[in-house]
Amino acid sequence: MGKNLTSRAEDYSKWYNELVVKSDLAENSGVRGCMVIKPYGYAIWEKMQAQLDKMFKETGHENAYFPLFIPKSYLSKEASHVEGFAKECAVVTHYRLKNAEDGSGIVVDEDAKLEEELIVRPTSETIIWDTYRKWIQSYRDLPILVNQWANVVRWEMRTRLFLRTAEFLWQEGHTAHATKEEALEEAEQMMHVYAEFAESYMGVPVIKGTKTESERFAGAEETYCIEALMQDGKALQAGTSHFLGQNFAKAFDVKFATKEGNQEYVWATSWGVSTRLMGALVMTHSDDNGLVLPPKLAPIQVVIVPIYKGLDQLDAISEKVEPLVKELRSKGISVKYDKRDTHKPGFKFNEYELKGVPVRLAVGQRDLENGTYEVARRDTLTKESVKAEEIVEKVSSLLEDIQENIYNKALAFRKEHITEVDSYDDFKKVIEEKGGFVSAHWDGAPETEDKIKEETKATIRCIPLDAKKEEGKCMVTGKPSARRVLFAKAY
Amino acid sequence: MGKNLTSRAEDYSKWYNELVVKSDLAENSGVRGCMVIKPYGYAIWEKMQAQLDKMFKETGHENAYFPLFIPKSYLSKEASHVEGFAKECAVVTHYRLKNAEDGSGIVVDEDAKLEEELIVRPTSETIIWDTYRKWIQSYRDLPILVNQWANVVRWEMRTRLFLRTAEFLWQEGHTAHATKEEALEEAEQMMHVYAEFAESYMGVPVIKGTKTESERFAGAEETYCIEALMQDGKALQAGTSHFLGQNFAKAFDVKFATKEGNQEYVWATSWGVSTRLMGALVMTHSDDNGLVLPPKLAPIQVVIVPIYKGLDQLDAISEKVEPLVKELRSKGISVKYDKRDTHKPGFKFNEYELKGVPVRLAVGQRDLENGTYEVARRDTLTKESVKAEEIVEKVSSLLEDIQENIYNKALAFRKEHITEVDSYDDFKKVIEEKGGFVSAHWDGAPETEDKIKEETKATIRCIPLDAKKEEGKCMVTGKPSARRVLFAKAY
Repeated sequence: MGKNLTSRAEDYSKWYNELVVKSDLAENSGVRGCMVIKPYGYAIWEKMQAQLDKMFKETGHENAYFPLFIPKSYLSKEASHVEGFAKECAVVTHYRLKNAEDGSGIVVDEDAKLEEELIVRPTSETIIWDTYRKWIQSYRDLPILVNQWANVVRWEMRTRLFLRTAEFLWQEGHTAHATKEEALEEAEQMMHVYAEFAESYMGVPVIKGTKTESERFAGAEETYCIEALMQDGKALQAGTSHFLGQNFAKAFDVKFATKEGNQEYVWATSWGVSTRLMGALVMTHSDDNGLVLPPKLAPIQVVIVPIYKGLDQLDAISEKVEPLVKELRSKGISVKYDKRDTHKPGFKFNEYELKGVPVRLAVGQRDLENGTYEVARRDTLTKESVKAEEIVEKVSSLLEDIQENIYNKALAFRKEHITEVDSYDDFKKVIEEKGGFVSAHWDGAPETEDKIKEETKATIRCIPLDAKKEEGKCMVTGKPSARRVLFAKAY
Repeated sequence: MGKNLTSRAEDYSKWYNELVVKSDLAENSGVRGCMVIKPYGYAIWEKMQAQLDKMFKETGHENAYFPLFIPKSYLSKEASHVEGFAKECAVVTHYRLKNAEDGSGIVVDEDAKLEEELIVRPTSETIIWDTYRKWIQSYRDLPILVNQWANVVRWEMRTRLFLRTAEFLWQEGHTAHATKEEALEEAEQMMHVYAEFAESYMGVPVIKGTKTESERFAGAEETYCIEALMQDGKALQAGTSHFLGQNFAKAFDVKFATKEGNQEYVWATSWGVSTRLMGALVMTHSDDNGLVLPPKLAPIQVVIVPIYKGLDQLDAISEKVEPLVKELRSKGISVKYDKRDTHKPGFKFNEYELKGVPVRLAVGQRDLENGTYEVARRDTLTKESVKAEEIVEKVSSLLEDIQENIYNKALAFRKEHITEVDSYDDFKKVIEEKGGFVSAHWDGAPETEDKIKEETKATIRCIPLDAKKEEGKCMVTGKPSARRVLFAKAY
């Protein structure tokens, strides 16, 4: 199996597209902008889901399921919300097909037109708040802490596997609270949950912050986000958590009786991460040889490849390997023993490198004689010979090492790619030549933000949570600024 | 909490609808025919999913994800398939909304018409076999054993929560094989997996069999099914597994090179169960007091209700109960200790009865003094006093007992409701007066089947797998018949 993978230096974008397809994560379908997530890619997504779901439940959330369709009139109820989504809505207008009268095939049956068009959900605030109206009467019904795992559709013109697809999979949390403070706390909490997941499981360091007004979710009063940095110096928004104020409660007339007996509008949050995380995972760690997966999310953590001539040798190897497979599995490690005789060891090595399996053990005749395994780690592509009696411990510690190492590597890369600048000229130069995050002063005006975006394609990724207070002057207008914000070109 | 539940005897259908809503399983949404699955209902569905997913993986299947949308032309490729689904398709025709020119609100943007209409998947054979064409070249690529958890849409005119909704959640397995025998084996295997799940987890006895030609899935050459019997004597198809022959391979031109180097069409199966199972669960076990849930699928297996006056008494009770909660949880039992002081014990008893919690422990002042718990089981509504030191063992054994008991009860009911008849008059009488399955001879002709359906509303639910060979005469036409088949009115 030759990899024939374009190198990152040659064409990062091409490398990404090729890698996603060749490593069996996903591929384009016959439906414009919609992808097929292949079993290997889906197995990673399942691991992400399982961990996130656990973290959501640990913070008190329950899952539920709301309709795929949203009546057009619902979407219109929150003004800024509809403005944000109207241009990318898939619209259902009919509910039946029929045979064409001229016998030319199947056509839409015009007699089966819907009274009101239905939108395929681009996000579910409207249908959910229409439901919450029925669930909430008094403060005793609050908070509602609900999450949904679902597919959503946003009709994008330019799509890329995982990063931007017309249909994608995600989770969307939608919570309802009695007070503004509680809702703000919830929104902030979920940003921290996302950051913890990204860093400890995906091995992707992220910067926590808030969005500027123009980058906020359509209908939000505050958007918290986590921002990651890809190897090509472009940022990627990996998750968002929105404080929605009382906007949706007002649009859908959701009030509750307070302890004192007053009627008040309910406070809301929503938060989501999507299959886009798969793109972030690939672009953070992988190299010119293929995927590099964090052990905590790798469908196969360890692969064992026998090197043999003839079935006798294979039998002798299997006799040693099979108990090892059992022992590793008993420790919760997912192992594949690949003894296919249709493919050569070199082919297999290439395949598992391409697929990012963290640890590879090879065992041949000489290893049998010496009582050793050849151990290769995917992140550093280094090999060593390890005694059989030490192999279980070695594998366990390697998996931890790799998880830590790829995080540290990504963190070091990001540190090297946060540049402070004080002039707009320097800004343009860094954005153009070096990439990464640029930390600069900005006067807080959307017009300045727009101008910068237009001239450099860089946007404000976030106002970092931990930004130190520092008086300064906007690099563009010279007007006063209270703290630096982070700019970058972004996916 | 008064239950105010219509009794089954009074109006079974009304009882079902009320129960689903009042026990917080699901409710109708503002979108015609689409339901909201509430957290309590979704928690049961999650448990079903987890167990089924485990069983699918144990039989070698992997998950993947395919697009929500299907181009109209794909659906048309398999003739009987499109005929089966065309009349209930939600059709996407546009991809954008815009502000109406007269300022009246948001309208569909006619400039954003799709070149080819997209169908919201009613099932995914077509989009999947369009994909499999790319995945399959040689016998080495087979079998493909893939499952998908997804939402699907079938535009039904009359809908009922869980039983028949426009959108529903399901899993659909789609496998590809080199030989007819292997595909048949797979289809049959999955029927057995479904039966095992229904009986051992849901506590729902099922009859395994095959469908008659007119009841087969659109595009299948054989449909295996599991059929359950509800308390009102109506049958419910709980799962189906289809042998699709080479129909989809031919429609989508999916061939493979055999070991001998010939090009042959691939053999296919598909199989699915859906949120309809939730309806079967409710209608098999529940009673006039509410849900009765099998312990293996109950989100809360044990609830503990303290009976106290004043916080001192509550503290004394909690001191005893909290270690018990821990101990039960350590055994993998899900426990809720409900010490809300906003509701009285009687209200709580009612609530957990309605929600079908299998075991309820109550503990009051006298229990504290005597070192006992009052233990109530939901299935029989019986109570007993149990010594504190025996309570863990008691709860464990009760959960097993209840799981077994509700299955046995349902099985006994079904046995009483399989009636053999030899004349059409008797048939009509049993169908009308007693309900349940009727075992009768049929000549194998679709016309006879149609006539029976028209005259009695009963359909052939299945040709049971274990039907004993028995020569006989069709009860309607008197023509020869080789074995009895099972008729019933059905959901």
